[in-house]
Amino acid sequence: MAPGAGNPAALSGSVRSMPLRYDTVTFMSDYGHTDEFVGVVHSVIRSIAPEAEVVDLTHGVAPHDVRAGGLVLARSVQYLCPGVVLAVVDPGVGTARRAVAVEVGDGQSVLVGPDNGLLAPAVAMCGGATRAVVLDDAEYHLPSPGPTFAGRDVFAPVAAWLCSGVPLESLGSLVDPAGLLPGILPVAHVDDTDPSVLVAEVLWVDGYGNAQLNVDPDEIDTLVGADEPVELSFADVTRVAQRAASYAEVPTGGVGLVVDSYGLVSVVVDRASAAGELGLVAGAEVRLRAVDAASGSSGGVSVSIGDPGRRP
Amino acid sequence: MAPGAGNPAALSGSVRSMPLRYDTVTFMSDYGHTDEFVGVVHSVIRSIAPEAEVVDLTHGVAPHDVRAGGLVLARSVQYLCPGVVLAVVDPGVGTARRAVAVEVGDGQSVLVGPDNGLLAPAVAMCGGATRAVVLDDAEYHLPSPGPTFAGRDVFAPVAAWLCSGVPLESLGSLVDPAGLLPGILPVAHVDDTDPSVLVAEVLWVDGYGNAQLNVDPDEIDTLVGADEPVELSFADVTRVAQRAASYAEVPTGGVGLVVDSYGLVSVVVDRASAAGELGLVAGAEVRLRAVDAASGSSGGVSVSIGDPGRRP
Amino acid sequence: MAPGAGNPAALSGSVRSMPLRYDTVTFMSDYGHTDEFVGVVHSVIRSIAPEAEVVDLTHGVAPHDVRAGGLVLARSVQYLCPGVVLAVVDPGVGTARRAVAVEVGDGQSVLVGPDNGLLAPAVAMCGGATRAVVLDDAEYHLPSPGPTFAGRDVFAPVAAWLCSGVPLESLGSLVDPAGLLPGILPVAHVDDTDPSVLVAEVLWVDGYGNAQLNVDPDEIDTLVGADEPVELSFADVTRVAQRAASYAEVPTGGVGLVVDSYGLVSVVVDRASAAGELGLVAGAEVRLRAVDAASGSSGGVSVSIGDPGRRP
Repeated sequence: MAPGAGNPAALSGSVRSMPLRYDTVTFMSDYGHTDEFVGVVHSVIRSIAPEAEVVDLTHGVAPHDVRAGGLVLARSVQYLCPGVVLAVVDPGVGTARRAVAVEVGDGQSVLVGPDNGLLAPAVAMCGGATRAVVLDDAEYHLPSPGPTFAGRDVFAPVAAWLCSGVPLESLGSLVDPAGLLPGILPVAHVDDTDPSVLVAEVLWVDGYGNAQLNVDPDEIDTLVGADEPVELSFADVTRVAQRAASYAEVPTGGVGLVVDSYGLVSVVVDRASAAGELGLVAGAEVRLRAVDAASGSSGGVSVSIGDPGRRP
Repeated sequence: MAPGAGNPAALSGSVRSMPLRYDTVTFMSDYGHTDEFVGVVHSVIRSIAPEAEVVDLTHGVAPHDVRAGGLVLARSVQYLCPGVVLAVVDPGVGTARRAVAVEVGDGQSVLVGPDNGLLAPAVAMCGGATRAVVLDDAEYHLPSPGPTFAGRDVFAPVAAWLCSGVPLESLGSLVDPAGLLPGILPVAHVDDTDPSVLVAEVLWVDGYGNAQLNVDPDEIDTLVGADEPVELSFADVTRVAQRAASYAEVPTGGVGLVVDSYGLVSVVVDRASAAGELGLVAGAEVRLRAVDAASGSSGGVSVSIGDPGRRP
Repeated sequence: MAPGAGNPAALSGSVRSMPLRYDTVTFMSDYGHTDEFVGVVHSVIRSIAPEAEVVDLTHGVAPHDVRAGGLVLARSVQYLCPGVVLAVVDPGVGTARRAVAVEVGDGQSVLVGPDNGLLAPAVAMCGGATRAVVLDDAEYHLPSPGPTFAGRDVFAPVAAWLCSGVPLESLGSLVDPAGLLPGILPVAHVDDTDPSVLVAEVLWVDGYGNAQLNVDPDEIDTLVGADEPVELSFADVTRVAQRAASYAEVPTGGVGLVVDSYGLVSVVVDRASAAGELGLVAGAEVRLRAVDAASGSSGGVSVSIGDPGRRP
């Protein structure tokens, strides 16, 4: 509206006549929608690269939850348009944690964000980084009244300048991508002491309450046989889950395992929240085994969940 | 970012040079903003039809609430840009429920979504369907790792291909629009046993707590006379509501009936949630009659709501 | 979809060939994302000015909270693209409160919204209004089924017509900007009876729980010395807060004061909600003084917040 000396568009009068290097900024964060953080980032990008389109992936990551943010990117990356990915879940903002831009596919896309593991799973799914820079050239940042909103002052302008054609290496010091902080994702594994048990973890509980496990359907087929039910144990709960092709196939009052839209196994119930009814949260350990295998040790009794009276 | 064999843009190298058939996709769903579902759908559309604009109508429909989603479309349809309407409230995803594209206005617009009644009220308000197809040509879908995210894998690509100029009839099998699942909307009616009573229903409680009834202001004028107060009864509550032209006209502590922005009658209070204070929810039955008529049977006492001590 | 006689695009068949006067509408409101209000406003703007881009600043302002909305604009205005700012927090909709368009910077931007103080802080930050009109020419509005959705029926079409090149003075009657309702923002001040105390107020609690005070860091340096801790008192709580350069510098269990991204002082804790742990809300009075000064009267004991056992 009334930009001062820090107006990014004043940095180069010729920027608007340059061809766009990237035309899409995919933007995700833990900013939420209560405050104006997302909108201000949009404004900053538009003031520098007015022709670039900003696609909001989500801003609903739980505050400071770097792991959850990294999983959002990992689930989405194969569906994203080439271009710049701007990702901000940044509890260490203002500290020595580095701000980085990570190139993948020899320049097909660039991921911009904090070097705290957030970008790592997506970078790996793109075949690894081809180059990386630390964003230490303040010429491409906004002047900051305070250091706590790097999304506005560092990451957004850098994302926009990338769209406008500024080369990656101009934005800061090239660093060895091998030195970027990795993202550690849990892998399901057979239990050390009981080879009939697969030890898994809830990766994600979505807004409907479906609980995604870090388990491939093939792993379950190997464990219990195709289409066979599975005993799930977590905390002090034991349930038998039926295999199902869709939510609606799960019987009322029962628990189902479906192959979800990412090709992983999710714990679901029909038209209700599995996580809410079963008490599952992201990060929880879930132990899976065949119902037969379970019968020896825990009885294998299938207990339907909830009070049938309150189900539709 | 790193699209595989299923990359929709690879389906036809020439798509970007075709003129846009539609330039707007209006998108509504029950996806919420916590997860990345909305953003992934945007990305898929943009990867196929980069020139099309996606307008998010709302993604705040309660999960699986097909009726509420149908009402969102019905309230909005006269304000929407011509083009494609992408609507996903789809508890039956992955089952035999059909995925459809429904043309209205001889091609002015196309509504894309599940055939579960969601689209029906809007289609009716546009004068009915002129053509309809079942989306059974998988060439225009994305390959699905699992069947549970039809918004991403079926509806979004179809919406985008429609924008890009793919003819409706290429997307699947033409079907008789008369066979689409209808949407049933409740109609207010005079009580069978007491002709002084209009039996209505709460269609919608908005984010401010205003409770829209399926009642036209003329119906109330006929029932009680213009500008006359109305007795409302629901559950075990009876209240007298004053007619008002705006929220601010409703006296503090009182209940008002205003003609809302859709021309229907809404139950409101000033600067607070009528639904919260009165306990009204979507689908609740509300009985209306003149205060005079009521006085014989129930005393017609106007009780102000809430504890006056906690009102501003 | 099926526009009737009120279709705004029909108002002037030549509108699309006019050059855009403004290409950006920045849109903020208290509409939330549960209902379709935001999406309908987008649709109306697009139907009139299809080339204009709508940037959503936020729609998460608490319902009817005009002060909070004014602060959102004040915090954001220096980062916004020139153009039209559409702001709707409007509890007096449908009453005699005026709908206005306020020009700043001799036409660089125009703010559109209710004349209830919402726009005033941002207008002041832009150097004051250069012209203002009351939006009393209904030719540029949509026909309204009811008076309660001025965002759709008045403000959105006016914002779009401004983009399309309609001159400000065509939209209604020019009025003296000095007659617009001012926005009153609280100023921190030294306590009348105790000059060692700075009386401040919480302006804003953001989604992370950081509590912004109406205090400049220089004021605190003057009060207690640079980098010195500060005693905070509010309600019946007294805490000692350490000065910190980032959230992460605040010790676990402690309270910090950081210079936030707007150059004001915020009360924070590391990776948790300061407002939640301390009971701070927008509008609360907070008294600040040096720990030395405090020691005479209240002992100056630093009490760590929360149960250390539940901190990470």
